[in-house]
Amino acid sequence: MSRHEEHAPRIVRTVAELKAVGRELLEAAAAEGREASLGLVPTMGALHEGHARLIAQARDENAVVVVTDFVNRLQFDDSADFERYPRDLEADAAIAAGAGADLIFAPEEREVYPDGRPRVLLSAGTLGERFEGASRPGHFDGMLTVVAKLLHYGMPDPATPAATTYRAYFGQKDAQQLAIVRRLVHDLDYPVTIRPVPIVRSAGGLALSSRNRFLTDEQSDAALVLSRSLFLMKQRADARLPLQPAEAVAMIESATGVELDYFEVVDPGTLEPLAFNCAETPFSGEALVLVAARVGGVRLIDNMPLTAG
Amino acid sequence: MSRHEEHAPRIVRTVAELKAVGRELLEAAAAEGREASLGLVPTMGALHEGHARLIAQARDENAVVVVTDFVNRLQFDDSADFERYPRDLEADAAIAAGAGADLIFAPEEREVYPDGRPRVLLSAGTLGERFEGASRPGHFDGMLTVVAKLLHYGMPDPATPAATTYRAYFGQKDAQQLAIVRRLVHDLDYPVTIRPVPIVRSAGGLALSSRNRFLTDEQSDAALVLSRSLFLMKQRADARLPLQPAEAVAMIESATGVELDYFEVVDPGTLEPLAFNCAETPFSGEALVLVAARVGGVRLIDNMPLTAG
Repeated sequence: MSRHEEHAPRIVRTVAELKAVGRELLEAAAAEGREASLGLVPTMGALHEGHARLIAQARDENAVVVVTDFVNRLQFDDSADFERYPRDLEADAAIAAGAGADLIFAPEEREVYPDGRPRVLLSAGTLGERFEGASRPGHFDGMLTVVAKLLHYGMPDPATPAATTYRAYFGQKDAQQLAIVRRLVHDLDYPVTIRPVPIVRSAGGLALSSRNRFLTDEQSDAALVLSRSLFLMKQRADARLPLQPAEAVAMIESATGVELDYFEVVDPGTLEPLAFNCAETPFSGEALVLVAARVGGVRLIDNMPLTAG
Repeated sequence: MSRHEEHAPRIVRTVAELKAVGRELLEAAAAEGREASLGLVPTMGALHEGHARLIAQARDENAVVVVTDFVNRLQFDDSADFERYPRDLEADAAIAAGAGADLIFAPEEREVYPDGRPRVLLSAGTLGERFEGASRPGHFDGMLTVVAKLLHYGMPDPATPAATTYRAYFGQKDAQQLAIVRRLVHDLDYPVTIRPVPIVRSAGGLALSSRNRFLTDEQSDAALVLSRSLFLMKQRADARLPLQPAEAVAMIESATGVELDYFEVVDPGTLEPLAFNCAETPFSGEALVLVAARVGGVRLIDNMPLTAG
């Protein structure tokens, strides 16, 4: 039997099954003397190598790994975009299996939203209004609402074996989403640890995204200016030099076929501008550089966490 | 040793203590062969007989009873009102003890809101904009946000003994609050059971409230028209007659010194108007009657759940 067949994850459709099977797996882990830990990896499906990295890290750190695979209508501001979002559970299951998932939770919409749109919602406030939120009103509120639900679905119930640890995995690729989810957990005291997972990049440096498939080879090459501009910031931060982001902006703006949306150096927790002048002050502390641009018709985002070396 | 001394609840100030002591008590219950159940009673202090009823019901139903005692700045639209809200932990502890609480969680503000106002908030949406919300913008969002946090604080962690049950107690007196908290738990899948507790009334029928202390004897008598109007609706609902709320409204409006704010018959889940004509259609199903009025300078609310008898 191949490794793949041995590890084919079980697919469950209801919250009740998820909780029952999750508990069973945690009990089995405890019975084997392992830590009864659960890693939740929320996704909207369309899994690629970036998701596989999330699942693999969850696998390394937990006895039980649950991948959720649900296209969340609430976070789409455009219903046509929601309808055409790729859905292929079989392909997702193969990738999840390869990366070591135990369980895939792939609910129907009526399981998650039995009464349609929830009446009580999360609000990301001003954190959700800038950057990606500026062009997608309501997106981060909808994302938070489903994440708040998924965190409760996956939460080990108190009837599981002693010493259960609960972790949830989010990619650094969606940096604003990660920052907002961290605030959700911090501000509303969800008993879960958020584990960020670094961006996976192509050999040339392009951040992996399901949208990259829409780029021509030429456009892929042009898009490399985004990660190059971020790595320039990282070099300067490592060397404690002034970041001088204007130079990175000029680099992107001079690239053919690349239309810059924003390039901002912000506080990683609040996503607000840094308190010091990036053009002149030697870099210290921590920051996050966010970039978004259109290449051809495709909107790409990328980012880089900075720490003074 | 008197019963009071034996049962004096322990007062804890931090979430970490709450979780540690809660777990200890649940483990002790399990060790004695009792169900390891926890009842959480969120309050803003200023406890009276109505709160005692909540605590007593939690005592009847759970091995461990936790009362939270925290004046939540977020739900006050008026900061002067927040500042003058009564705070008397000693008096609260005596009432909580009498009703059987094991533990009082009375945190400082910085324990609940370490970074000031949370960035991620709950939103009650349109449910929070009508009735009490109409005159108190943001009130229900602030209430939901602290309840969302308190529910997580009290949540038995998975390292507690098997078969832990988690319940939270809310008074029917604040009917809109109760409806919104039910939606919070339903819409965001909090693993807790909400237990509503009936209104406690004076011998004459006045719903108990910390505000009643501001009424003169004459005003207290005048205020009885509110509960009389509600009991009239209940009689008709029990008899499956048309409710004819206009008659109750006229009754209140003709009372001296009583200024009606609203009197509405609504769906108990959505707080929206009933689908049938209350004036003409014989009552069936379920409904909730909400009333608010000013008596002297004091704003009073009351309500009555209706079920066809």
